[in-house]
Amino acid sequence: MPAPAPNLYPPFNIIRLGHVVFSVTDLAASRAFYVDTLGLQVTHEDDETICLRAMEERGHHSIMLRRGERAAAQSLSFKLFSEDDLDKARAFFDEKGLPAECVERPFQGRTLATRDPHGIPLEFYFHMDRLPHIHQQYALYHGARPLRIDHFNCFSSNVDASVAFYNEIGFRVTEYTEDEETGRLWAAWIHRKGGVHDMAFTNGMGPRLHHAAFWVANPLNIIDLLDLMSTTGYLGNIERGPGRHGISNAFFLYVRDPDGHRIELYCSDYQTVDPDHEPIRWDLKDPQRQTLWGAPAPRSWFEEGTLFTDVETAEPDLKAQPIVAP
Amino acid sequence: MPAPAPNLYPPFNIIRLGHVVFSVTDLAASRAFYVDTLGLQVTHEDDETICLRAMEERGHHSIMLRRGERAAAQSLSFKLFSEDDLDKARAFFDEKGLPAECVERPFQGRTLATRDPHGIPLEFYFHMDRLPHIHQQYALYHGARPLRIDHFNCFSSNVDASVAFYNEIGFRVTEYTEDEETGRLWAAWIHRKGGVHDMAFTNGMGPRLHHAAFWVANPLNIIDLLDLMSTTGYLGNIERGPGRHGISNAFFLYVRDPDGHRIELYCSDYQTVDPDHEPIRWDLKDPQRQTLWGAPAPRSWFEEGTLFTDVETAEPDLKAQPIVAP
Amino acid sequence: MPAPAPNLYPPFNIIRLGHVVFSVTDLAASRAFYVDTLGLQVTHEDDETICLRAMEERGHHSIMLRRGERAAAQSLSFKLFSEDDLDKARAFFDEKGLPAECVERPFQGRTLATRDPHGIPLEFYFHMDRLPHIHQQYALYHGARPLRIDHFNCFSSNVDASVAFYNEIGFRVTEYTEDEETGRLWAAWIHRKGGVHDMAFTNGMGPRLHHAAFWVANPLNIIDLLDLMSTTGYLGNIERGPGRHGISNAFFLYVRDPDGHRIELYCSDYQTVDPDHEPIRWDLKDPQRQTLWGAPAPRSWFEEGTLFTDVETAEPDLKAQPIVAP
Amino acid sequence: MPAPAPNLYPPFNIIRLGHVVFSVTDLAASRAFYVDTLGLQVTHEDDETICLRAMEERGHHSIMLRRGERAAAQSLSFKLFSEDDLDKARAFFDEKGLPAECVERPFQGRTLATRDPHGIPLEFYFHMDRLPHIHQQYALYHGARPLRIDHFNCFSSNVDASVAFYNEIGFRVTEYTEDEETGRLWAAWIHRKGGVHDMAFTNGMGPRLHHAAFWVANPLNIIDLLDLMSTTGYLGNIERGPGRHGISNAFFLYVRDPDGHRIELYCSDYQTVDPDHEPIRWDLKDPQRQTLWGAPAPRSWFEEGTLFTDVETAEPDLKAQPIVAP
Repeated sequence: MPAPAPNLYPPFNIIRLGHVVFSVTDLAASRAFYVDTLGLQVTHEDDETICLRAMEERGHHSIMLRRGERAAAQSLSFKLFSEDDLDKARAFFDEKGLPAECVERPFQGRTLATRDPHGIPLEFYFHMDRLPHIHQQYALYHGARPLRIDHFNCFSSNVDASVAFYNEIGFRVTEYTEDEETGRLWAAWIHRKGGVHDMAFTNGMGPRLHHAAFWVANPLNIIDLLDLMSTTGYLGNIERGPGRHGISNAFFLYVRDPDGHRIELYCSDYQTVDPDHEPIRWDLKDPQRQTLWGAPAPRSWFEEGTLFTDVETAEPDLKAQPIVAP
Repeated sequence: MPAPAPNLYPPFNIIRLGHVVFSVTDLAASRAFYVDTLGLQVTHEDDETICLRAMEERGHHSIMLRRGERAAAQSLSFKLFSEDDLDKARAFFDEKGLPAECVERPFQGRTLATRDPHGIPLEFYFHMDRLPHIHQQYALYHGARPLRIDHFNCFSSNVDASVAFYNEIGFRVTEYTEDEETGRLWAAWIHRKGGVHDMAFTNGMGPRLHHAAFWVANPLNIIDLLDLMSTTGYLGNIERGPGRHGISNAFFLYVRDPDGHRIELYCSDYQTVDPDHEPIRWDLKDPQRQTLWGAPAPRSWFEEGTLFTDVETAEPDLKAQPIVAP
Repeated sequence: MPAPAPNLYPPFNIIRLGHVVFSVTDLAASRAFYVDTLGLQVTHEDDETICLRAMEERGHHSIMLRRGERAAAQSLSFKLFSEDDLDKARAFFDEKGLPAECVERPFQGRTLATRDPHGIPLEFYFHMDRLPHIHQQYALYHGARPLRIDHFNCFSSNVDASVAFYNEIGFRVTEYTEDEETGRLWAAWIHRKGGVHDMAFTNGMGPRLHHAAFWVANPLNIIDLLDLMSTTGYLGNIERGPGRHGISNAFFLYVRDPDGHRIELYCSDYQTVDPDHEPIRWDLKDPQRQTLWGAPAPRSWFEEGTLFTDVETAEPDLKAQPIVAP
Repeated sequence: MPAPAPNLYPPFNIIRLGHVVFSVTDLAASRAFYVDTLGLQVTHEDDETICLRAMEERGHHSIMLRRGERAAAQSLSFKLFSEDDLDKARAFFDEKGLPAECVERPFQGRTLATRDPHGIPLEFYFHMDRLPHIHQQYALYHGARPLRIDHFNCFSSNVDASVAFYNEIGFRVTEYTEDEETGRLWAAWIHRKGGVHDMAFTNGMGPRLHHAAFWVANPLNIIDLLDLMSTTGYLGNIERGPGRHGISNAFFLYVRDPDGHRIELYCSDYQTVDPDHEPIRWDLKDPQRQTLWGAPAPRSWFEEGTLFTDVETAEPDLKAQPIVAP
């Protein structure tokens, strides 16, 4: 089994994924997509930046949109348990020889900006401004009624290496796809917060962000979003779904924002808090892996992703191919 | 069995219920309720009148709100198959000695204004202005996402007599409540359009309008409305539900508008188009009659209703009592 | 506009579609599919025949399965308003020179067996045995929880001609697809009972039965069926969906029975009882026609269908092609 | 604010609630309720004992039913992070002077049996037998389709004291009800696993178990259970709901098993993993506290509960009263 045993006593304590910073080329177009269509709430807005949160989130934002020349993901952020963990994280990355520096970020406390071994720009923080709860202000709910950020998914040019690194810092594998021929990992889902994942890796030209996902209450929220997007000019932004994943057992939809950043709407995975939770293995050639109901994902889903700002990508050496829709 | 056999060849052909005209004391407050909260669409609006339709309706309106001194129901309207049926209806009501005259109504063709034997102001029309369909303009959907008007329910001081009259003009009984002691009808559900009812009668001081109902797609639309009303100042307007009716098997919620007019949100009853469809009998003392899950309705639900403009009411002679919540 | 005006005074009164008789090659396999998986209820069963009804149906059956050498549809049945209508129907088909004879059918009264001009074997009956209602026996609900038969859809080698014939006997067009180049009908949805259709025709080698459809309460029943079929050996029987149709606005799934007969699970279309209900036109090249969300149907969906017993088929002369999934 | 600050570095690490052991007087009747009706899966069964798990659970059981002379709760069990935590827990309870001993329990590793200061029999274990996952065996899903155990709720004669104790062992308060007059806690919801609660306390004659709750995917699963129980002889076992809690924002239903043990079906609360997650305060007199939609709970809900085996109860000194249904 190529999935590593969990590291139950990691060097620092990551609570959960926090937020993603996207460069977008047209803030107004992005606002129409994320706010008017998906249903995220604006928590800050100026000429350069829009901050967004989902309905049950109390942290200031889970997506930050920044006006940019070209579409990109600037960083993926994770929330730490305490300030002490920030220092421990700094020491860990320093020791690894990975670039790490403390940076100022609006709406949050001391923040560590660093990189994973493939170059993914990671940021760690222990404090973000807390906002009043709005989860019972039902007049604000609309669109897909997104409740909280759920996970990131990244292309990796070496999934085994990516999983080994994140495993070292405490992420635990819940499900994984193995290439039967080589015995190597083709994809893996890894978590900190007790769901199927905070982060996932898929074999491909990397590092790139494959998607960020938001949790919704049930499949009808996703059907509502499909109806809305289909009749408000976003038909071409619907990429894959709806369906149920074999992996994670979640109900899903993938859509693309005006810059092509991929967003998943996601619900109904399962609880994984037990330290002895057993990962589930899937064969790359299992047609129910991607979608329990059998429909393969389109080629764009396997090939397209968001570049990280100023990060070079590499082709994977594992050449095994998934089942792709014709 | 006190439910009469259907009159399959009635004197004129009623297609379905059409609309109700409500007097309301504060148009702005009513607009906030019906449009912003329930989710009906405005099709006409002036200083005196607001016309509303639900999402799949193509007729101009299913509710007309008119500014008035006091809350009342001005009329219940029904759509006829053809203009010929309007003349036949006129002849029928004339022969019965019931007041009947042709009147002008905005947005519709020739209209017959008449009364049922208990004085309920009925109007019949064969043409109402047709509007472009909006059922696939999903950006307009909000609130409870009402799809179409479903039925009226009236208090009657003599349900046997009410049912006999409406049976004569072609309404067919689908379910009814019998008072076991007297063998008399305590309530009845009667239809023209092929669902459980276009009209129902309940024993009580009558005639009064008990409620008008709108069809929604599924129970989650009703739960969404409850969440919305509970957090936007309408907590006191929630009267009964949610629940599943024993009678009709429909999922329901009853709410009150700012003037106290009762509106039901309703879904999941069944098809009754067969001429040999058998009515279902319920005993007044069956605790599952009102709500399949056992919860009795509150006293207000049995006692309060909307007066018809300038119509005197009478107490019922049938004194049998339903199960009322303590 | 190629959709004919409705014939509001047809020669005889058809209430609704009634049932389909399928030849199946393995009764036990069909039972596992229709009963254990879809959730239909057995109302009669012997060595040659299984009769099935959905949860709210009170007629004896809406599907009859008969053991046969090869898969086929033996007939499509429709319920008439009265016995008088049976005689009128007989006269109508005789006058048209179409084969028509009275036949004995189990569980129903006098029955007229005839053919439409393309050879589709039609049967008309006014009485079928009525069974006790089971719609509130919730312990019986399982699978997709089918509530009632909703419609048939047939391939026709000449949709204009098919629609003209059924229009003459009172079916009304609710939506239709036009081939822009020729101005001819490529498909049409026609009804008697007040929904979007009791019958539909699609351009193709015909006559063949494309599918029979069952109404369910909401999309989650369809998602439940997908989950069930995906994990009980029926993965390959899932053909298309889930999705929302552009035409009809209904949420749908198409599955194939063990003999390849296609069944649709269907919900959320709209009411069409008004005699002045306006049909909706769609262009054959509109990508949202098939699926509002844009996904095209697979080739099998356009090409495969069930032969009617002993009926020859013809290729359509209209060669216009829909959008087909690659 | 009477809710204590969280103890982020507790003496031992509790992962989540684990299971409850119920004494039941008729194993067959309990089986019909928990298995055939609620939809739990049997993982062990003999003449004295039935073990049950929900659909996504991999631990051997979340409810154990044991044949007994009288209905009671024998213990509430919690899963620890590691065996080391078991030793730390032993030391903690010893130091507190609370009875603590290591016991043998079937299907699990070393187990600590102890008591909280009010006498609630608690058990802690770090290992329970792991079973193959069944969450994608959809043919097994039925009833309410319960996914996992979610929380326990207990009556306490002194909620302030209960919360102080559980806070010391790491439970964090997410929501609480304050009696405005005295400033004391009337109820509190406390968690370990990252949802609104693993445990809650309500002011009342205690200690007694108020209920154990199971998570379901969405409100329609709860509506399905209501329909099923209403028509299979369990009408009288429906106690309260359905509704949405003000506290927790969850959709709920309370039912009673054949011995009166109360079970909640529960969904749609929110994530609370942040160490700086702020508790929400509710006033005891807020009518939306119990049910966001305003309906008060019945008297039985406030007064009836399950005794713990051989544990004496005491009346609370806080006499403040909630709003009770008339």
